[in-house]
Amino acid sequence: MTETVPTLLVVSAHAGDFVWRAGGAIAAATMRGERAVVVCLSYGERGESASQWLQGKPLAEIKAIRRQEAEAAATALGAEVEFLDLGDYPLLETPEAVEKLVGVFRRVQPTVVLTHPLADPYNGDHPAAARMALQARILAQAIGVAVDGRFPTTDEIIGAPPVFFFEPHQPEQSDFKPNVLLDVTTAFPLKQKAMECLPAQKHMWEYYTQLAIRRGVQVKRNAGPNLGLPVDTRGEAYMRYYPQVTDVLE
Amino acid sequence: MTETVPTLLVVSAHAGDFVWRAGGAIAAATMRGERAVVVCLSYGERGESASQWLQGKPLAEIKAIRRQEAEAAATALGAEVEFLDLGDYPLLETPEAVEKLVGVFRRVQPTVVLTHPLADPYNGDHPAAARMALQARILAQAIGVAVDGRFPTTDEIIGAPPVFFFEPHQPEQSDFKPNVLLDVTTAFPLKQKAMECLPAQKHMWEYYTQLAIRRGVQVKRNAGPNLGLPVDTRGEAYMRYYPQVTDVLE
Amino acid sequence: MTETVPTLLVVSAHAGDFVWRAGGAIAAATMRGERAVVVCLSYGERGESASQWLQGKPLAEIKAIRRQEAEAAATALGAEVEFLDLGDYPLLETPEAVEKLVGVFRRVQPTVVLTHPLADPYNGDHPAAARMALQARILAQAIGVAVDGRFPTTDEIIGAPPVFFFEPHQPEQSDFKPNVLLDVTTAFPLKQKAMECLPAQKHMWEYYTQLAIRRGVQVKRNAGPNLGLPVDTRGEAYMRYYPQVTDVLE
Amino acid sequence: MTETVPTLLVVSAHAGDFVWRAGGAIAAATMRGERAVVVCLSYGERGESASQWLQGKPLAEIKAIRRQEAEAAATALGAEVEFLDLGDYPLLETPEAVEKLVGVFRRVQPTVVLTHPLADPYNGDHPAAARMALQARILAQAIGVAVDGRFPTTDEIIGAPPVFFFEPHQPEQSDFKPNVLLDVTTAFPLKQKAMECLPAQKHMWEYYTQLAIRRGVQVKRNAGPNLGLPVDTRGEAYMRYYPQVTDVLE
Amino acid sequence: MTETVPTLLVVSAHAGDFVWRAGGAIAAATMRGERAVVVCLSYGERGESASQWLQGKPLAEIKAIRRQEAEAAATALGAEVEFLDLGDYPLLETPEAVEKLVGVFRRVQPTVVLTHPLADPYNGDHPAAARMALQARILAQAIGVAVDGRFPTTDEIIGAPPVFFFEPHQPEQSDFKPNVLLDVTTAFPLKQKAMECLPAQKHMWEYYTQLAIRRGVQVKRNAGPNLGLPVDTRGEAYMRYYPQVTDVLE
Amino acid sequence: MTETVPTLLVVSAHAGDFVWRAGGAIAAATMRGERAVVVCLSYGERGESASQWLQGKPLAEIKAIRRQEAEAAATALGAEVEFLDLGDYPLLETPEAVEKLVGVFRRVQPTVVLTHPLADPYNGDHPAAARMALQARILAQAIGVAVDGRFPTTDEIIGAPPVFFFEPHQPEQSDFKPNVLLDVTTAFPLKQKAMECLPAQKHMWEYYTQLAIRRGVQVKRNAGPNLGLPVDTRGEAYMRYYPQVTDVLE
Repeated sequence: MTETVPTLLVVSAHAGDFVWRAGGAIAAATMRGERAVVVCLSYGERGESASQWLQGKPLAEIKAIRRQEAEAAATALGAEVEFLDLGDYPLLETPEAVEKLVGVFRRVQPTVVLTHPLADPYNGDHPAAARMALQARILAQAIGVAVDGRFPTTDEIIGAPPVFFFEPHQPEQSDFKPNVLLDVTTAFPLKQKAMECLPAQKHMWEYYTQLAIRRGVQVKRNAGPNLGLPVDTRGEAYMRYYPQVTDVLE
Repeated sequence: MTETVPTLLVVSAHAGDFVWRAGGAIAAATMRGERAVVVCLSYGERGESASQWLQGKPLAEIKAIRRQEAEAAATALGAEVEFLDLGDYPLLETPEAVEKLVGVFRRVQPTVVLTHPLADPYNGDHPAAARMALQARILAQAIGVAVDGRFPTTDEIIGAPPVFFFEPHQPEQSDFKPNVLLDVTTAFPLKQKAMECLPAQKHMWEYYTQLAIRRGVQVKRNAGPNLGLPVDTRGEAYMRYYPQVTDVLE
Repeated sequence: MTETVPTLLVVSAHAGDFVWRAGGAIAAATMRGERAVVVCLSYGERGESASQWLQGKPLAEIKAIRRQEAEAAATALGAEVEFLDLGDYPLLETPEAVEKLVGVFRRVQPTVVLTHPLADPYNGDHPAAARMALQARILAQAIGVAVDGRFPTTDEIIGAPPVFFFEPHQPEQSDFKPNVLLDVTTAFPLKQKAMECLPAQKHMWEYYTQLAIRRGVQVKRNAGPNLGLPVDTRGEAYMRYYPQVTDVLE
Repeated sequence: MTETVPTLLVVSAHAGDFVWRAGGAIAAATMRGERAVVVCLSYGERGESASQWLQGKPLAEIKAIRRQEAEAAATALGAEVEFLDLGDYPLLETPEAVEKLVGVFRRVQPTVVLTHPLADPYNGDHPAAARMALQARILAQAIGVAVDGRFPTTDEIIGAPPVFFFEPHQPEQSDFKPNVLLDVTTAFPLKQKAMECLPAQKHMWEYYTQLAIRRGVQVKRNAGPNLGLPVDTRGEAYMRYYPQVTDVLE
Repeated sequence: MTETVPTLLVVSAHAGDFVWRAGGAIAAATMRGERAVVVCLSYGERGESASQWLQGKPLAEIKAIRRQEAEAAATALGAEVEFLDLGDYPLLETPEAVEKLVGVFRRVQPTVVLTHPLADPYNGDHPAAARMALQARILAQAIGVAVDGRFPTTDEIIGAPPVFFFEPHQPEQSDFKPNVLLDVTTAFPLKQKAMECLPAQKHMWEYYTQLAIRRGVQVKRNAGPNLGLPVDTRGEAYMRYYPQVTDVLE
Repeated sequence: MTETVPTLLVVSAHAGDFVWRAGGAIAAATMRGERAVVVCLSYGERGESASQWLQGKPLAEIKAIRRQEAEAAATALGAEVEFLDLGDYPLLETPEAVEKLVGVFRRVQPTVVLTHPLADPYNGDHPAAARMALQARILAQAIGVAVDGRFPTTDEIIGAPPVFFFEPHQPEQSDFKPNVLLDVTTAFPLKQKAMECLPAQKHMWEYYTQLAIRRGVQVKRNAGPNLGLPVDTRGEAYMRYYPQVTDVLE
């Protein structure tokens, strides 16, 4: 078996989601020399581009703007990004979309998967993205499942990479109970740079910086003894979907 | 700050519990050169010694037998063991018992804590042990909490070691949803030796071997790609109580 | 901003649902001079018209009967009613149906939304109606979401009206835990009149009167001190989906 | 009303599922002289036939093999079996598939229904099968719901048979909390014979034998007094979906 | 092993609880010739006797009145009744009270146990009674647990009788999700007679009759096909705490 | 019946809790001319006064300091404060402590009650305080329950005031799902003044200001249409324990 390069795959409903919610995890991975690939299922062109619609911009231009922003943010994080352009509001869960994602999983061969949590009463696209990501991850494991009529080789089927849900906007309302607190202190400057690639949502820069501080406080509270974490620890919260497999309890 | 030796503290309601449920984790720790300390809150003298009562043995003798068995099993696992002799069936949750446990936490300075889960409709002693272990872990962190009238030094207060619940006898009925699957393949021979130190429950040896196989299958199913786990993987299931703190998602 | 007339929008899977489950709330609103609009997604022509099928009536006639009954009941409650005729048993959740509902939300501009709860193991149409109502409520807020190819003006997009689920037939089995008990004592005579517009389900009149008494007892039990509620208080139970926003705790 | 022959209907996502998970219940029913009908929604040809794909067999042959195995296993259990050939990985939930199942329910007139539980993070086909089985069970009760354009007679509509979910592969991860433990000791030899009809999954024979032993231990633990169950009790775990209706608490 | 007479043990926090909530089950048992024993932990003298306190009656008289009522009601149901006089409001959970209950379990040798559910935000005595009943049921099984210093003989230890929680006053608020609907149609006249033994709560007679009708409707809705239940079916709702053990799924 | 002055009763485990978690609600009430009474069950002298212990101060002095701070903060909020001095770490749940609280409830006659939520894995004193507050609220309603041997007059028993849990430090880990978002924008300056009365926890001032901003964002997101809330809306999150009783859905 050839050696696996650790690879993070982030399935994001809209163009901006991965920056706010998982930018720290992505930057931390690329700073460790790992690969990170972001798949934006849509550009968030209808549901998350209100200011541009109010300026009267046409759909194609809005999509182009969102795409450029996302590309810039991904670059800032050291990540690759691709766009499936499936449409948003609503992002429809279809067999065809899932099949495309199966193709992505097989091409990228992720060792870790990040996506939205399964509940979000404020935005139906997020759970739809999560359901498709989870289904594609399973189908991509099966040698009998073809994509575009082509069956996979044994090298192309994937294993069972762990899945982490990133934090939704209103966590308690979305049944988001974090079971992993990620220390992103070192990676946070890159996340900040990535956030600044999204100028239309400038008010979010401070909001997500404060969230990182808040989660950082929880990182320190939940850390074991003698870790000596710095005062300005920054955190991101995640929810592991499958049991952790390990040979050390810690 | 002085260097911390990784130390596992296991809070067990009865004398035998730690063997069946956490023997693999304990052996794995000691095989890595770490310290493991087991605290048995009772001998299980009333609720888990039916065969001895049926033989007409007196209470003191039953307690002595259970103690010897537990000591032998702990030795087989490479662990230390101590006994608080709080009585069982029922194991009563009292401030005095919690205070004793605070003393244990401060003396042992655990980096990881194992105990029973908080629900068990078949045995009230198990949740009582868990509640006391959790409360003692918190009180032991506070510099204002004295034990036997003596306040701790700053070295004696503990940090916030992670807590894992080990598997109850009927997991689904006890709301036990494992979120950690521990690979105990290498440690399993020691667990087997420890189980054999409990001859009165010989029928359990096979039962817990089969459970280790079952959890081992789940270890393999939930493991990431390319781990190359052997066919005879052995597992133990745990439920992490506090969020995991980490700087790598994996 | 022009002044908003308080407007209740009720999304009902079948023609009769709104009468039994929300008749009190509707009548209370119209008695306060507010507007109430009921949208029946189907006539309940297949799943809730057994007696008419047994009489051998054709589909078109059954739909007409159910429509007339619903119109009469709505009139009794002082409400408007419209019918989307999406079919029932099953009521299918489709993008087209949701788009129609988006149009309704924008036209009606509701300040409060009532619909079915999200679980009902006895009737799949009810959760389907709820899911579509919730999705339409979100899409109707977005300026980038068109209906029939036409984009909304800024006046047409809606805010974030609160959503209440009304009581299903078997509440405990449908995970229906009421967090709002509505006092409908004054409105109850109108509800009774509305129920009597549904002669084919005469046995339900008494059933829902008794339910109103039962919920009325709970209104009194849960009310704060000194409210002086009358002995014959009538109630309806609701489940608020989003957090209540208020500036007084009471 | 004509006398009802007790009839078990098992809705299985893939060809093999019913054997491993419900073989004991099926055999127990047929051994009591009751009728048992298994409906396999797919052959499991893509998702559960990895070894055959690796041998390079074409799809049609794989389906034929899985069909023969399932027929042999059903025969061993004394059950009838039919195949809807809806495809797997993914098994798509469609109105057409549900309509076919409605036809099955009306033809078979089940007094008891078995199917998969509603959650399974490891296999999306299982919950899809369950959702379709549950929906079909409801639609089949309605006299206004036609199949292939034909409306049912009053004899053809079904009652409200109880539904039991059988055990998924990883029960705790699938929110499977058994509330019925079925004693299948007498039926187990037939289940074993049926398992042996699935030679490609030979490693599962022992796995499911051990599971039957484990559930058998729980049968004994949860049984009332003086039942005198034998040491080698074999069990299967089920989750009743609707409340039990009875006139004796026991 | 000697033959067991089926025996129902009802653990009731206050003197009246068993009548309203379990009167149907008790009468049904005694009408089948079985034994039923009610244990009232308190008389409900403080928390459920407001009208008597308002009349200025002294405590001893109130207790005597409640006792006489309970005895009359038990007689009407064909049941025995005893009183532990542990005090109410609050009913304290103590080792001594549990020990007394262990004695009751060993003396009565119940084959079925009824008690309150574990949550009731309106009355803390109910969950306290339930917790003590559950704990006593476990302790009574252990040969090493003495009562009043006397160890049990092997005949005196009990098996593992099933436990059913009866319906609280506000079921949804008490997380009461019935999984057993008991048909008490035949027994209902006896329950009515028993209710009439509690003249101070005359307003409850109608309330609980209506509840029996409501639960009776659910009995019919959830019953399997062809049961031919009468229009005036009366029901009581229960929540089974441990899994049902059976050899027939039905 | 005499007119009731709206009165807020806040049951706080430690001296500082009410400031951080409910300061906005308290100030909003007093600014409306209502009465607010805070009961601190302990001074937080052992568990929440680490810096003072590190300075070597004796227990009595630490208690005095915490008391003075809490009095100053209460004054800043316009509230009365009293101290039961029950001890902390652990705060023990005893019948005597509950009886004292019953006396408080009867004296204060609250129309609204605030306290801690029922779960907090980081601090056992908080749930203990909540359990005692809830129990006392029920006992205070009963005319048969005496305090210090004295029975209440009919004026002294209380009604059924609504209960709100305030926000714990780690909401998701404490199963805290807010169902009420309180707009405290106007009251926030007073809360800020109150926080500044607690100089030892200066780092918390900013932390709770940021939390108020975060909850303020959610106030705006969840508010109905046309509310015109300002950009700098400040919020506090609450969890209503009993159903809301109302005659308007809004």
